[in-house]
Amino acid sequence: MTQQVANNVVWHDGEVTRADRFNRLGQRGATLWFTGLSGSGKSTIAVAVEKALHKLGKLSYRLDGDNIRLGINKNLGFSQEDRTENIRRIGEISKLYCDTGIITLNSFISPYRADRDTVRQLHEDSGYNFIEVHVDCALACAEERDPKGLYKKARAGEIKNFTGIDDPYEAPIDPEIVLHTDEMTLEDEVEIILNYLQEHRYLILYR
Amino acid sequence: MTQQVANNVVWHDGEVTRADRFNRLGQRGATLWFTGLSGSGKSTIAVAVEKALHKLGKLSYRLDGDNIRLGINKNLGFSQEDRTENIRRIGEISKLYCDTGIITLNSFISPYRADRDTVRQLHEDSGYNFIEVHVDCALACAEERDPKGLYKKARAGEIKNFTGIDDPYEAPIDPEIVLHTDEMTLEDEVEIILNYLQEHRYLILYR
Repeated sequence: MTQQVANNVVWHDGEVTRADRFNRLGQRGATLWFTGLSGSGKSTIAVAVEKALHKLGKLSYRLDGDNIRLGINKNLGFSQEDRTENIRRIGEISKLYCDTGIITLNSFISPYRADRDTVRQLHEDSGYNFIEVHVDCALACAEERDPKGLYKKARAGEIKNFTGIDDPYEAPIDPEIVLHTDEMTLEDEVEIILNYLQEHRYLILYR
Repeated sequence: MTQQVANNVVWHDGEVTRADRFNRLGQRGATLWFTGLSGSGKSTIAVAVEKALHKLGKLSYRLDGDNIRLGINKNLGFSQEDRTENIRRIGEISKLYCDTGIITLNSFISPYRADRDTVRQLHEDSGYNFIEVHVDCALACAEERDPKGLYKKARAGEIKNFTGIDDPYEAPIDPEIVLHTDEMTLEDEVEIILNYLQEHRYLILYR
């Protein structure tokens, strides 16, 4: 657990509620958390889901390991401690977005089970929804794709602590959704996500 | 400047653009940054503006020193270094919200000019709008209000590094908006903010 340092702080209730924002947007806020190996297809799915939600008039926002690391987490590296703090901060940001009413599409390798469970707990403790999506792709397949050429560098020893090579990936035990991206089409994957969101009433559809 | 630690990171362009989100919401994302002494009225104004925007069908979200410190910044205290990192992280979160299309209402004492200027720069470098609102209230007046009893504790030496008592407040030199909360009504203050947002075309009003 991250320790609370600051004292003299209290939560402020506003006069506009979460429910007001959800009604305004016609959706409930939620965190879709795509976890999997580099090259497994996390960002590709997130971009496709974002597009599909936009077509339905729904507002989503992508939080991405690369993007976040150029901004709020630019002062963090890839040590285990920094990875943990990276994921914790992203979890807290997702929580704020949930409360705002936005569906965030989070694409992070997030290799450690304990870190993802921390984010899940953060959400559940505050009544927000954490939807863990295991983007499950065999290492051999991800390494063959190698869209950023990172596996090649990791195998050559140019990148250290690379997940799947010299750092572990701990697969989710009971994720809300599993996508076998080495066996499915992108269209099928998007449909699974949208069906999940509709079945669990995240989208208020006006007919 | 905060140093970039992680390498091998690139910005991902999605297929849904910022403009798509702004059109969906009928507004442009912006950061309203309320700065001023403890007890100057920052949170009171933010709550009132949030309510007024909601009545117009606009989506805003309040980020607040107290709320943020219970979440993403729970591992920061009140040393100068921690205050600077506190404001930097909030600035980065506001930037994400701007990009999402949300108007954030940020209430932070944010006593150091350099920290606020860093947040302004972060925004302007990426084409986002930073609207600095000086919530200007005489120390004597803020101290008399003392809504949380913090001045009393600071005077008694129970709280150290308290802005206005034993830590400086550096007023903005050229803020977009100044509110003299010891001379104005809350209604007038809200009107000034809304007029600013309308005049600068942050709100797309459908008539």
